[in-house]
Amino acid sequence: MKNPKIKAFVFDAYGTLFDVHSVIEKCNELFPGKGENISGIWRQKQLEYSFLRQLMGRYSTFLEITRDALRYACKEGGAELTGETENQLIDAYLELQHYDETEEVLKKLESYKTAIFSNGSFDMLSPLVDQSPFGPLLDEVLSVDDVKQFKPTPMAYQHVLDRLGVRREEVLFMSSNTWDIAGAASFGFHTAWINRQGKEMDELGVKPDYEYNDLRGLLEHAQ
Amino acid sequence: MKNPKIKAFVFDAYGTLFDVHSVIEKCNELFPGKGENISGIWRQKQLEYSFLRQLMGRYSTFLEITRDALRYACKEGGAELTGETENQLIDAYLELQHYDETEEVLKKLESYKTAIFSNGSFDMLSPLVDQSPFGPLLDEVLSVDDVKQFKPTPMAYQHVLDRLGVRREEVLFMSSNTWDIAGAASFGFHTAWINRQGKEMDELGVKPDYEYNDLRGLLEHAQ
Repeated sequence: MKNPKIKAFVFDAYGTLFDVHSVIEKCNELFPGKGENISGIWRQKQLEYSFLRQLMGRYSTFLEITRDALRYACKEGGAELTGETENQLIDAYLELQHYDETEEVLKKLESYKTAIFSNGSFDMLSPLVDQSPFGPLLDEVLSVDDVKQFKPTPMAYQHVLDRLGVRREEVLFMSSNTWDIAGAASFGFHTAWINRQGKEMDELGVKPDYEYNDLRGLLEHAQ
Repeated sequence: MKNPKIKAFVFDAYGTLFDVHSVIEKCNELFPGKGENISGIWRQKQLEYSFLRQLMGRYSTFLEITRDALRYACKEGGAELTGETENQLIDAYLELQHYDETEEVLKKLESYKTAIFSNGSFDMLSPLVDQSPFGPLLDEVLSVDDVKQFKPTPMAYQHVLDRLGVRREEVLFMSSNTWDIAGAASFGFHTAWINRQGKEMDELGVKPDYEYNDLRGLLEHAQ
């Protein structure tokens, strides 16, 4: 059912618009038999380190955190990481495929404000947006790096309002990450959980307003 | 080598003084074949929810968080949780075994200030301390619940100083949890990582001052 208040459609990047699967493939290619385990630890630690650095008051960019997490994952996964393999794996983050339906959906949202809002720093986000066919369709690409506050803190989501000039109840925020949905809902955005893998919602005392298998679902809110 | 500045020995609880293994056993007993997976998700989500609630500004007690994490773990692990099994598993957290060497070590620290400092709320901590033989050897049992700030935020560790009346460089803080060591070291405590399982240190830009297999190692700093 259409929500008539919505003026801005704001999208998380990793897992939401861009598929991180190619990173897993690269891990499997470089560390046969260990790639699955290492890429799993890598992603878990990447998130954990962003949360922990925010809690400790030791912000560093998501690119640096991604590198730190990779180093830990290889230590724990028993794989030797050279300067070259490290760069190959980091580069894989700069060449992610976007999800197929993204362009079609953004085209139908042309009368609204649209933006990416990511924990990723611009050195990670810009290559992805520049390679995608939908870069010109977006009004803004916003990174927490401008305010040095990772999602899911309220101060991170506030950055969206400051930059887009809308009120929190006028935002529909999309993410495939449950912690991001919880943070955005807690802040007061309307939220649509893009639950591509049929996962369970986290038990954090907040629920998404909408849940869709992919981005097309949110078009029910567009004119 | 002895650090002559130390006036207070402060201990994390879960995994550091108390062994959470009995919780895993109970999971395996109630959910045969699924217990390992469920208890793993449970612990991971328990930590993650405390971090995320702190980041979102939605504090709730560690007992409530532990219950939420258990509910999520059972959903994801495909196990039906009844009111009764839920209570049995939560109760297992109130009956953890302490590590064998704890009493002996605390006895040798009697000329120092000693305290537990935990993310656990008193409804979880008090039963453990009361059942243990070393409760009377501790000067203080401190919970973040008094300040509603989870570790690893600086404001949480500040609570230790406020309550013990010492300066940060006079504290030696022990934890088996790498994120807790990173937070305490970042705050300015001396830190000893009780690395019982021979794990790798996290890549968070801070390292422990000392690393021991169990609590006995820290006696090198005692008179």
